[in-house]
Amino acid sequence: MIRHAIVTLMMIAGIMNANASGSKDKRPNVIIILTDDQGTVDMNCYGATDLYTPHMDALAQSGVQFNQFYVAAPVCSPSRASMLTGQNPHKAGLPGNASSQAGHSGMPTEKVTIAEIMKANGYQTAHIGKWHIGYTPETRPLGQGFDYSFGHMGGCIDNYSHFFYWNGPNRHDLWENGQEVWHDGEYFGDLMAAKANEYISAHKDQPFFMYYAINMPHYPLQPKGQWREYYKDMDMPRRDYAAFVSTIDEYIGQLIKTLDEQGLRDNTIVILQSDHGHSNETRTFGGGGSAGPYRGSKFSLFEGGIRVPAIISYPKKIKQQQQRNQMALNIDWLPTIADYCDIKSLPAEVEGISLRKVIEKNSNSEHEQFIWKSGGSWAIRKGDWKLIGYPQDQSGKGVLDPDNDMLFLVNLATDSTEMLNLAKQYPGKVEELKAEYLKWEYASADDIPVKRQTFKHKAIGHKIELTKAPHPKYKGKGAAGLIDGEAGTRFHNDGYWLGFEGNDAEMVIDFETAVTANEITVGAMHNPENWIFFPSYIEVSWSNDGSAYTKAVKIAVKEPEQRNNYARQRFSIQQEDINARYFKVKVKNVETCPAWHNGKGNKAWLFIDEVTIN
Amino acid sequence: MIRHAIVTLMMIAGIMNANASGSKDKRPNVIIILTDDQGTVDMNCYGATDLYTPHMDALAQSGVQFNQFYVAAPVCSPSRASMLTGQNPHKAGLPGNASSQAGHSGMPTEKVTIAEIMKANGYQTAHIGKWHIGYTPETRPLGQGFDYSFGHMGGCIDNYSHFFYWNGPNRHDLWENGQEVWHDGEYFGDLMAAKANEYISAHKDQPFFMYYAINMPHYPLQPKGQWREYYKDMDMPRRDYAAFVSTIDEYIGQLIKTLDEQGLRDNTIVILQSDHGHSNETRTFGGGGSAGPYRGSKFSLFEGGIRVPAIISYPKKIKQQQQRNQMALNIDWLPTIADYCDIKSLPAEVEGISLRKVIEKNSNSEHEQFIWKSGGSWAIRKGDWKLIGYPQDQSGKGVLDPDNDMLFLVNLATDSTEMLNLAKQYPGKVEELKAEYLKWEYASADDIPVKRQTFKHKAIGHKIELTKAPHPKYKGKGAAGLIDGEAGTRFHNDGYWLGFEGNDAEMVIDFETAVTANEITVGAMHNPENWIFFPSYIEVSWSNDGSAYTKAVKIAVKEPEQRNNYARQRFSIQQEDINARYFKVKVKNVETCPAWHNGKGNKAWLFIDEVTIN
Repeated sequence: MIRHAIVTLMMIAGIMNANASGSKDKRPNVIIILTDDQGTVDMNCYGATDLYTPHMDALAQSGVQFNQFYVAAPVCSPSRASMLTGQNPHKAGLPGNASSQAGHSGMPTEKVTIAEIMKANGYQTAHIGKWHIGYTPETRPLGQGFDYSFGHMGGCIDNYSHFFYWNGPNRHDLWENGQEVWHDGEYFGDLMAAKANEYISAHKDQPFFMYYAINMPHYPLQPKGQWREYYKDMDMPRRDYAAFVSTIDEYIGQLIKTLDEQGLRDNTIVILQSDHGHSNETRTFGGGGSAGPYRGSKFSLFEGGIRVPAIISYPKKIKQQQQRNQMALNIDWLPTIADYCDIKSLPAEVEGISLRKVIEKNSNSEHEQFIWKSGGSWAIRKGDWKLIGYPQDQSGKGVLDPDNDMLFLVNLATDSTEMLNLAKQYPGKVEELKAEYLKWEYASADDIPVKRQTFKHKAIGHKIELTKAPHPKYKGKGAAGLIDGEAGTRFHNDGYWLGFEGNDAEMVIDFETAVTANEITVGAMHNPENWIFFPSYIEVSWSNDGSAYTKAVKIAVKEPEQRNNYARQRFSIQQEDINARYFKVKVKNVETCPAWHNGKGNKAWLFIDEVTIN
Repeated sequence: MIRHAIVTLMMIAGIMNANASGSKDKRPNVIIILTDDQGTVDMNCYGATDLYTPHMDALAQSGVQFNQFYVAAPVCSPSRASMLTGQNPHKAGLPGNASSQAGHSGMPTEKVTIAEIMKANGYQTAHIGKWHIGYTPETRPLGQGFDYSFGHMGGCIDNYSHFFYWNGPNRHDLWENGQEVWHDGEYFGDLMAAKANEYISAHKDQPFFMYYAINMPHYPLQPKGQWREYYKDMDMPRRDYAAFVSTIDEYIGQLIKTLDEQGLRDNTIVILQSDHGHSNETRTFGGGGSAGPYRGSKFSLFEGGIRVPAIISYPKKIKQQQQRNQMALNIDWLPTIADYCDIKSLPAEVEGISLRKVIEKNSNSEHEQFIWKSGGSWAIRKGDWKLIGYPQDQSGKGVLDPDNDMLFLVNLATDSTEMLNLAKQYPGKVEELKAEYLKWEYASADDIPVKRQTFKHKAIGHKIELTKAPHPKYKGKGAAGLIDGEAGTRFHNDGYWLGFEGNDAEMVIDFETAVTANEITVGAMHNPENWIFFPSYIEVSWSNDGSAYTKAVKIAVKEPEQRNNYARQRFSIQQEDINARYFKVKVKNVETCPAWHNGKGNKAWLFIDEVTIN
């Protein structure tokens, strides 16, 4: 409700603004072109020598090229959510990828997007291309401030059939203004370009904001035929990736041409940015993109995952042929755009800072520090120092030592390649950055790497039987692993945790002879990013013959207070003087993702490890 | 070499034949239209009331409709291989699905296909559509007797981009005469139809054989827009499936029209058949097709998996408006076609029998009996009796009792729905059919369901550690399950077997105190259909302190003699007077599929269960 009031106020202010400027609104148009999985240096102006990207390079030439530009997440949905809200992805309510299935929500509707702000200030707003931050009517583009929308709602599509192929049944995913539309066989790039062209032509007399989210060079690698031909002698997987980048380049050229033809180029802010680093997934044949000298790729908090090409061009007000080496962030676009468009009032939640002074005066970065947290990793950059907790790296540039690299310290001024971990050499700096990280609202003490917890307890090595098998992907060390004295780590997929999809965990531990005990504990994980939740309750009963059990002792389990955050906890059931041979433990799954969660109504995961009896 | 000699002889005979028939060869043209995953009754003339299939129905009206027509396998590749060779899929060398990845072979090249026979007899031969029985130059269509080929080599494609999406990276799969071709955005149905039309027009003056393998209504469900519109009020998943069936129907109409226009209809044999029953896979949204009153679907040996619509039309020689209720088989087309085309000499391996007498004289079926074996199930039909071993049923029509339904007996004359298992009522019939089945060349004693084997041995319940984890999909009951006294069953995916992809199984069993022993046994599976092979060797060593081990005792393991067949075996390592606490057992994976196998060079699977120590 508060949000609505703010937006309404802004809207009034906006209309007044528009009226104040006379009969023709002279404020600039704004186009954000977002590419998908384009590598850190995959543009000629960023150092690529084997790519043909004349229109991207020309765009850079016509304005400012940022050489140290970060996205707030190395993954699709949170990177998009952060850019559209000017907030870090946790604050924006979408720290992990949204579902690509219709009927699943994504970024909460109460978050204020740049489209809502622009619209409230008299702008026409359009989304063209990929969405992937919500697939319900409220969380699709028209629910998040866009007047017009054309594109796909999930993570990717076949560019000719517009089918999503990557989970469950193969589904068609193409929408215009909330209605499913069919363009069988028409190349999605051409469709986007035509819609963008139409939109610009139809709106040339009123200021518009266009979010042009090109779904390329994301897999499937489907460049246009002429570019496939152009790169035919290159090796795979670079060949198809390169052809796909040149396909984008062609569309960018078309867009700029349309602006020129409509006489809008001078007064249009054009931003070009990749959503994060390149992909090494099997679906891209293991790679194709490049981070140049940088380590890491998509999913990683090394530079190759989060440092992206980023350009702003605004001929009327921004000088041409500029390069900036200051740290800047994708959450800065929102306030920068607001700045250039004379929008004074922004939601208090916005964390980005206008880049106008950096752009116009080459002043220092406004960001002394920034924090990332994604997929189990986190990172803090402060000045030139950067500390990564639980780093991940699929780029193959180096091997991470599980004992010594779980905290990875670098100084980007002296080593931007991040190949050398300075943590042992600068323990004070590690402590300082760790402390700084822990002050962050979305940090948890559990994010700090520790050795795997071990327990001494009576059940170790005894017989155990699970009445329902865990999910085949998350069988941990089997049932025996639940009572082996060693608990799972921070990561649900570490091979220790047992995961149950929609099911409860029910086990019988058999000591083969009666033992005395007074406490049973169960370790569980709450990891909403991965649809994992604490159980709803835990029950324990015991028996001497394996058939007649005592009435169960039951404890209810609550969600953690910060329910959006990762948590781990051990739950304890205590009872005096148990003397029994068999212990039956039931850990009750919440069954479906709760109402507040974007997986709402879908099967919930239960992850447990180490059940102790003492 | 022998094959080549036969083919050469046939070719000489064929050419003589052609010459003998005068300057214009008057033999009929032959077109086999094979549809993909079309359900048993999914044509109006087979009982569907909600489908629009006028051209299929007209084809049935113009010739003979078979009402008890079987395919030799309920799965794609073996069904196709059997039809093209006139042999059961085991004899044809392709009992399971071929790979959809380029570079993987399929049906062995030495098998003689109908295309090779027709070509040797002066026919022009064409393949249009899906292939899926080999993806190497030798096993693709041009290597198997076709003069011309257009289509995709794997199991399915997106119909607009012609990409294969279902395993590994997303790959383009469209070929013409062995060369990759690109038709970005063009609907595959239209492409096939255009190629078929061109081919027929170009070959109207010489007899041709065309294998027109329409890849529909197999997933992805991508009907033409007008049929999507026609069925828009139907419920999913039937809606898209129905639209896809009518899409096929339209193409069949086009084909018949072309034949009419070219004046070829009268002297062309047109056969229409589905490759097996409809799919219940997630990829078809759990269903869409129908087997009508019959139980089972794709993958099942109940009627719904193997009984398919089948029609032959040959206006010049075959009477119109005929129905046949005799049992007939897809392997019969080859000899039937040979019969009508005056081809006298067929390879001795052909098991099919010409249907000419059934067609023309309505005589009894030539098949007293037939045997199927697919995916762990097998079945024998003799007269009206049918016995299924290890039945599978994903159609949801009934529940199979794991204790009582592993041998499932029906009498199709009294119950074609197969809902009632008569095995207990007619034990003599079960024994008779079982004995008959076991006489079959490709049967194995191990195919006969038995209770799960249990063992008493010393290691049961002791500590065990695996040094390499099994594949997450096949973790069995965890390491502890290897020494729990119970062996895995016939099926590698029964939840008992531990499977290792490319890796060895290495374990240490710790008795916690020294024990005496003289025999260690390991159970393993050989299941080439699923890329599972016996290990290459097994090694055992033992220790009292867990670090100093004896020199390993090693036994080499050989492939089973009938290496194409499923087998299970226990391997025994014997040694007098072992006295030790720790036993280290290494079961060596063959690592890659052997040269004779169609997975050649790919990672091999090792499956083991129950390691005993006594």
